[in-house]
Amino acid sequence: MSASDSANRTWVDQALRERAEQGLLRSLTTRPAAEGDAGINFAGNDYLDLARDSVVCDAAAEAARAWGAGATASRLVTGTLPVHEALEAELAAVMGGESALVFGSGYLANLGVLSALAGRGTPVFCDRLNHASLLDGVRLAGARWQRYRHNDPEHLDALLGKNPGCESAPALVVTDSVFSMDGDVAPLAEIAAVARRHGALLIVDEAHALGVLGPGGAGACAAAGVRADVLTGGFGKAVGGYGGFAVCDARLRAYLINHARAFIYTTGLPPASAAAAQTALRRIREDGGRMGARLLAVARGLAARLTARGFRVPAAQSPILPVHIGDNEQARAMADALSERGVICGAMRPPTVPPGTARLRVSVTLAHDDAGLLDRAADAFAEAADVCGVARER
Amino acid sequence: MSASDSANRTWVDQALRERAEQGLLRSLTTRPAAEGDAGINFAGNDYLDLARDSVVCDAAAEAARAWGAGATASRLVTGTLPVHEALEAELAAVMGGESALVFGSGYLANLGVLSALAGRGTPVFCDRLNHASLLDGVRLAGARWQRYRHNDPEHLDALLGKNPGCESAPALVVTDSVFSMDGDVAPLAEIAAVARRHGALLIVDEAHALGVLGPGGAGACAAAGVRADVLTGGFGKAVGGYGGFAVCDARLRAYLINHARAFIYTTGLPPASAAAAQTALRRIREDGGRMGARLLAVARGLAARLTARGFRVPAAQSPILPVHIGDNEQARAMADALSERGVICGAMRPPTVPPGTARLRVSVTLAHDDAGLLDRAADAFAEAADVCGVARER
Repeated sequence: MSASDSANRTWVDQALRERAEQGLLRSLTTRPAAEGDAGINFAGNDYLDLARDSVVCDAAAEAARAWGAGATASRLVTGTLPVHEALEAELAAVMGGESALVFGSGYLANLGVLSALAGRGTPVFCDRLNHASLLDGVRLAGARWQRYRHNDPEHLDALLGKNPGCESAPALVVTDSVFSMDGDVAPLAEIAAVARRHGALLIVDEAHALGVLGPGGAGACAAAGVRADVLTGGFGKAVGGYGGFAVCDARLRAYLINHARAFIYTTGLPPASAAAAQTALRRIREDGGRMGARLLAVARGLAARLTARGFRVPAAQSPILPVHIGDNEQARAMADALSERGVICGAMRPPTVPPGTARLRVSVTLAHDDAGLLDRAADAFAEAADVCGVARER
Repeated sequence: MSASDSANRTWVDQALRERAEQGLLRSLTTRPAAEGDAGINFAGNDYLDLARDSVVCDAAAEAARAWGAGATASRLVTGTLPVHEALEAELAAVMGGESALVFGSGYLANLGVLSALAGRGTPVFCDRLNHASLLDGVRLAGARWQRYRHNDPEHLDALLGKNPGCESAPALVVTDSVFSMDGDVAPLAEIAAVARRHGALLIVDEAHALGVLGPGGAGACAAAGVRADVLTGGFGKAVGGYGGFAVCDARLRAYLINHARAFIYTTGLPPASAAAAQTALRRIREDGGRMGARLLAVARGLAARLTARGFRVPAAQSPILPVHIGDNEQARAMADALSERGVICGAMRPPTVPPGTARLRVSVTLAHDDAGLLDRAADAFAEAADVCGVARER
């Protein structure tokens, strides 16, 4: 007998009913088989198709057998293993940073970095479409924060100009480099110039850019010639694995080790995940950026095919293509109709995206580098739209 | 060239200098070899010695090879794999819950559960010594929260009695079951009775109790005959792996899937970690609680040896034994002197523990189930204390 069955029943049921009435109730669907067997998966983030690469998986398996299933402690106690150091060195080399610190996940990295750097009262300026983990980090910090208009350095400049300043710590400017819902790239050179002019720290989440954009897959900041104060991100996207990171100078790394609660109060990343990420990153570095270039060609190829079939798709700047639908229910119906045709993609609806902008989020990977596959996928979109009554431009 | 080199230098250096002056600067030490080779490790959380169990590690390795290094997406998109479902079923069976939801880590589970259940304005009542992740979850929620005195149901009762209530949602009572710094167990039956009387939800973090206490390792709530509304915890302790969880009824699970941002906006747990945790949990269930009982006997054996040598150690209620030192620098010196003698344990200092209560935190595991090893360890403590000038009672 629960402590409070009657109390929680009403409240929980009402919350679930509200979501259901808005067409927004989510549930978990199990991916039944290994990728590839189940049709065309446009819903994953495994951009470089490294998650099932045999060398990467072997590295994970060997690390599990050599070091165990877990790190058995916080990184600060006895949870730092040689594989964590090797991963941090490899990551710093790939991204061109002085040093790196590995967190348990990308969400934890953003939470840890922002709650450590943005003390109570620190002014923080965030792009309006930043990832939820950046927002949660700012909230947890108890910072005074403001959002600037999406990808708008002039608005950022105006807000920083009105900032009364804070004596104890500089302001923070925080942005995704590639935005996860739209796949567009932030104007990083302009944002960095504004941040520098106002003496603010610049924190850039490279989650969707690492391995994809920039020289040798170093990310969008490297592509723009920008050196941010902290780069964050995770290994769950192009690196094909699990975990998160901050890349920064050695002093900031020492600061994070001492102040990032999401680093201090968590178990170290398991050896298998650390070894897999290190192996994938080495592949990315040795490849010299060719995989990323090929991936963007795949994205452009699919965008062209969808545009030719009358869908509203922006020019591809990354592997993420938003296909505008608008209505929540139509987006879900489209995703279902595509699934029946063997094409899996996510229907992104509020609160993940702003109301009225429901969309299909198409993420291409190197597993889709096949003209015939892209043709079939685009045809499936057209059929599904016709079945669901989604308007196309002709 | 950083966006703001001059701005961040002063601030970061000052923060690091302050920590150093207080004897509290932390850095990472790499564990150089597999556990066991490096002496006696009292600093890990691998209570049942399952992290390097060959069956558990094989399960991790096989899952990495079969399913890949990562889940490649959020659990809500295509990141839910059969191994996640199997893990959730096994965990619910072990803990005696209706259902379970796996998170990326224990920190993420607490953050996700609390920020989902404790909306802005919800009154939350926390034990004063709750784990940092519970505190961060409450902070992130923007809840109105109060701390009650450690393990004091009467104080909780008094605070709940003054609670003006909240129409939209019930109050929350939040406690660790085994406290990570002192190893003591919360009076769960009394706390649950108080929560029930006031119609509050009860959330219990079983991180250090799962696999250790209760029938079949089900945890401290099961041991006390208490059914909490949500049990949280992680797989980085007795389960020997990585990841976190909430165990609750199916409606609350559905609510968390829809509202827990630390679940929604993160990549699913990697297959290797999920398979390792499932395998370890099955072992715990099939063992029927014998490993936990043996572990407590090891803890009592070490506590008796340390007490006989004049150390202040409370009666062992869990595998965690705090050895009181008091002074920050002496605690660190003791840990160093022990390390020179092949005994690794953490010096816990502020802000992890309250000022003036620096201690050595000794965590025993089944790898220490050897009377000769415990004798040697206790002798090393005595030698180290004499070297460091730490007073012992004779």
